[in-house]
Amino acid sequence: MDAARDRASGAAAAGDAARDGQASDMEPVDSYLADIMATIEPLAPVRLGLESAEGGVLTENAATTTPLPPFDNSAMDGYAVRAADIASASPDAAVTLPVADEIPAGDTRAITVAPGTCVRIMTGALMPSGADTVVPVEWTNGAAGEAKFYRPAPPGNAIRHRGDDVPAGEILLTAGTRLGPAQVALLAAGGHGTAPVRPRPRVVVIATGNELAEPGEPIAPGRIYDSNSYLLATAARQAGAVAERFRIDDDTGSVLAAINERLGRADLIVTSGGVSMGGEHDVVKAALTGLGTVRFRKVAMQPGMPQGFGLLGHAKTPIFTLPGNPVSAFVSFHLFVRPALLALQGLAPAPPDSGRAVLARPVRSPAGKRSFLRGVLNLADGTVMPLTGQSSHQLRSLAQANTLIVVPEDVARMEEGESADIISLP
Amino acid sequence: MDAARDRASGAAAAGDAARDGQASDMEPVDSYLADIMATIEPLAPVRLGLESAEGGVLTENAATTTPLPPFDNSAMDGYAVRAADIASASPDAAVTLPVADEIPAGDTRAITVAPGTCVRIMTGALMPSGADTVVPVEWTNGAAGEAKFYRPAPPGNAIRHRGDDVPAGEILLTAGTRLGPAQVALLAAGGHGTAPVRPRPRVVVIATGNELAEPGEPIAPGRIYDSNSYLLATAARQAGAVAERFRIDDDTGSVLAAINERLGRADLIVTSGGVSMGGEHDVVKAALTGLGTVRFRKVAMQPGMPQGFGLLGHAKTPIFTLPGNPVSAFVSFHLFVRPALLALQGLAPAPPDSGRAVLARPVRSPAGKRSFLRGVLNLADGTVMPLTGQSSHQLRSLAQANTLIVVPEDVARMEEGESADIISLP
Repeated sequence: MDAARDRASGAAAAGDAARDGQASDMEPVDSYLADIMATIEPLAPVRLGLESAEGGVLTENAATTTPLPPFDNSAMDGYAVRAADIASASPDAAVTLPVADEIPAGDTRAITVAPGTCVRIMTGALMPSGADTVVPVEWTNGAAGEAKFYRPAPPGNAIRHRGDDVPAGEILLTAGTRLGPAQVALLAAGGHGTAPVRPRPRVVVIATGNELAEPGEPIAPGRIYDSNSYLLATAARQAGAVAERFRIDDDTGSVLAAINERLGRADLIVTSGGVSMGGEHDVVKAALTGLGTVRFRKVAMQPGMPQGFGLLGHAKTPIFTLPGNPVSAFVSFHLFVRPALLALQGLAPAPPDSGRAVLARPVRSPAGKRSFLRGVLNLADGTVMPLTGQSSHQLRSLAQANTLIVVPEDVARMEEGESADIISLP
Repeated sequence: MDAARDRASGAAAAGDAARDGQASDMEPVDSYLADIMATIEPLAPVRLGLESAEGGVLTENAATTTPLPPFDNSAMDGYAVRAADIASASPDAAVTLPVADEIPAGDTRAITVAPGTCVRIMTGALMPSGADTVVPVEWTNGAAGEAKFYRPAPPGNAIRHRGDDVPAGEILLTAGTRLGPAQVALLAAGGHGTAPVRPRPRVVVIATGNELAEPGEPIAPGRIYDSNSYLLATAARQAGAVAERFRIDDDTGSVLAAINERLGRADLIVTSGGVSMGGEHDVVKAALTGLGTVRFRKVAMQPGMPQGFGLLGHAKTPIFTLPGNPVSAFVSFHLFVRPALLALQGLAPAPPDSGRAVLARPVRSPAGKRSFLRGVLNLADGTVMPLTGQSSHQLRSLAQANTLIVVPEDVARMEEGESADIISLP
């Protein structure tokens, strides 16, 4: 089985080499990515309610609308008093003070503690004027009428001071911050009901191919189930986008119509299929050649050599035309589309989460191409096991992989025990 | 400013110690978590369409409904021929064969290649009978009428064999697999339009407190903006849940009504506030004491000592009553609620993403409690910087943190340069 797979794969690789002709025909991965990224502008910010803003990237510094805390308040349940009034208190000689009032959290009354009295106060409640300390209930008898104090408390005890978290007018969060739970909470605490963020990109995924059937339908020999549109839409969501997917037949007019229809409703379009070197059946290539800034290129990588990218329409919507083999589509998405999606959100187009690991088996790679092989990284011992089934149509190994193993263009074989570059998959 | 903060924080810590009384009053963090986890059952599976199933955990093994690929097909654009018919081909002595037909991808006709002829074939197209090899178009003149072959091809060249990715009937994915892009795609390719998964938990977040105002509204001294419900709803979504949030006033009847109303619509309920030791103002405690299996406990941790947990109603819905200070609520969520949410989804309640790092500054911790201090981990040098502002109401440092620093119960101080346990925040 594996031997058969390897033969098929080897033959395909030989075919690729033949097809490529000169290495100089091919665009290096890095310059192709750089060309793409140079054209991607972050989406215009929109002001969203805090719950919708979650996950978004703040586009302006957010100052607090109120100091945090907004007022001096009690850190505990206890009594607000003048420290001087209980300075002599001890377990043997309790000081007794009348309880003049009670201040629960949320009480907005302006209360003053008269000398020689105390006020019961709850955690978070507004400190009354006159008092300069809070005595925890545990240091007292806890009574409602006459409170007995068994020890003194220093001035300022258990008081949270206005502005001790964030002083008035200070910046809460700077532009460029991604809003997770704590950041959303900080905006809320600072009085912001909305936030200006770059919205989630709207991605449209279009799988082309007469051979494609919807999973669950009966199919005849010659047809396969569409998996690419699911693959790419799910990967787009993982990268922070809102995605819709559909598939269309191999017809140039249909491809053009589908893209035109969605141009105004998408921030990025991804197609799969229809971009190989085979002529009239490559409908995506046929439909898009000459449109906008779209260019089709051979990129020096395996899988995923035939790539297309450009900007379409008055909104200059980025479109990626990915190859139709599912593993090629996946690797292409990860290398090119995902960074673009992050850039649309205003996130630094960080290099993929990369590192190095020791090969647990040798790997081969076609000369002149950067290979991205599927592997399983073992974090415990720092090794990576290349999976069986590295052909670009073999989805099972992709579903088992947590890592791509990167083999450079000028390397045809790496041995077991060699250290290889890896890219962790999300 | 920092000195003032530290005083307030120190005083609060002293107060906590006084309030706790004996260390034996308190439940250790680990046994409290174990008690919770022992009661959490994964949600019953539902069969969802593939796009909705994304992110879910498969509850049954999924076998392929068809071998993958479902039929022998061409790995390239080229010609399907008998290898024997072009065995003598060379650049100087091309073999010429009439092109009898053309097979695009998706063509379901049963075609036979007669001896001495060839058929043009596209990538992914069904292999015709009669032919035993595919010759890449680059090894030919690419003509439509009479194809010239300039080199021979071995039998089996550029053919992907039926089942070489996944043979008939084999397991595609095993129960327990979380469905990401590649897994969803593999299910689709294997013919599954739906998948049985544990659904996303529905979480209801209820913030209690008369002091709470909606962010953006004007507020009077004594009131603060609700941040906890945003914090907890966002954190629940980050843990894979669907969350809705709201806040209610400090009224036992309102708390009970709100919980009862949502019992049938929630898989898990989280409240914040109303559980300290202060008596009648602790409305959550008052409302829930004696209901279902709810118990209120002091857990030996800082922040977050006052905790409540139990199962409510005929569906035994888990409810967590978290303390009202935002940092306490966040830490409690991360330690207790997040593992429960993962378990509801059938995900192994893995230990939080933990490790060790070198302290860049000393830290203090109250005796008898496990402390969770906010810090910034520097992955490059393996150090962690404890942030300024460690009081449980100080949200700003939480919003800057990427790490919790764990100080054990029996340690009161750790020095700069000591190695500490850490928990990475998602």
